[in-house]
Amino acid sequence: MPRLTPLAVSLALVAGLISALPASAADFAKQEDAIKYRQSAFIVMAQHFGRLGAMATGHAPYDATAAAANMNIVTQMVKLPWAGFQPGSEGGKSKPEIWKDPAKFKELQDKFLDNAAKLDAAAKTGKLDDLKAAFGPTGKSCKNCHDEFRKK
Amino acid sequence: MPRLTPLAVSLALVAGLISALPASAADFAKQEDAIKYRQSAFIVMAQHFGRLGAMATGHAPYDATAAAANMNIVTQMVKLPWAGFQPGSEGGKSKPEIWKDPAKFKELQDKFLDNAAKLDAAAKTGKLDDLKAAFGPTGKSCKNCHDEFRKK
Repeated sequence: MPRLTPLAVSLALVAGLISALPASAADFAKQEDAIKYRQSAFIVMAQHFGRLGAMATGHAPYDATAAAANMNIVTQMVKLPWAGFQPGSEGGKSKPEIWKDPAKFKELQDKFLDNAAKLDAAAKTGKLDDLKAAFGPTGKSCKNCHDEFRKK
Repeated sequence: MPRLTPLAVSLALVAGLISALPASAADFAKQEDAIKYRQSAFIVMAQHFGRLGAMATGHAPYDATAAAANMNIVTQMVKLPWAGFQPGSEGGKSKPEIWKDPAKFKELQDKFLDNAAKLDAAAKTGKLDDLKAAFGPTGKSCKNCHDEFRKK
């Protein structure tokens, strides 16, 4: 087995894959890394959430398998962006209130996660009516947090 | 139960969550959505891959639990970006060769996925040496594909 370890990181750095090495397994090396990370996680989430929405509103044909597959990805993605709001990562579209009132931010986050968990169950029953019923509250959770904490 | 469905999508659109509704459960509504999606999936992946790299190279202390947790996210993320290279989604940092030589692109993608699966197993043994050994080939797979198919 070749000793590739330092080389591997060099390769990854060269390839532009890793912008900087984090100091620990949970940190972002730079403020802008945290911002890009949370925005990226939301973009991926929104894409799959949007596909569920298209089905929930009749803009796309209902496909139970696709609904479950898209929701699986949403369920993975909803776990991620929050770490990107670490202290000192103000910026992007985020209002400073996120860091000034973390309890309120956490409250809306928890409400969203609760609704997303219900949507996960609903998207997997194979019934369009279940998807329709659970999609609205989740979308509203998104909006509530954006209204409060995201710049226009 | 209120009939929230059309409202829900309106809310999501207003919140800027969904840029456009896709025509099917697997499509991107616009070319730029596909580009943003794949770039975002790579950004999230790279963040967690970078944390594994930091541990593999001694730039961050080895933490077996964190290694497994980061790799779990990588393993979810490696599934995603490829759908964003759908026909007609040329652009961003992608060279046109991706669409001109899809077989070659698929070959490098499969090689990467194979190495990532090995890294997944290695990151979960709890042994730093296993992580070190498997990280290099995966990083090299990233670089090989970037060299071939990504603009400088």
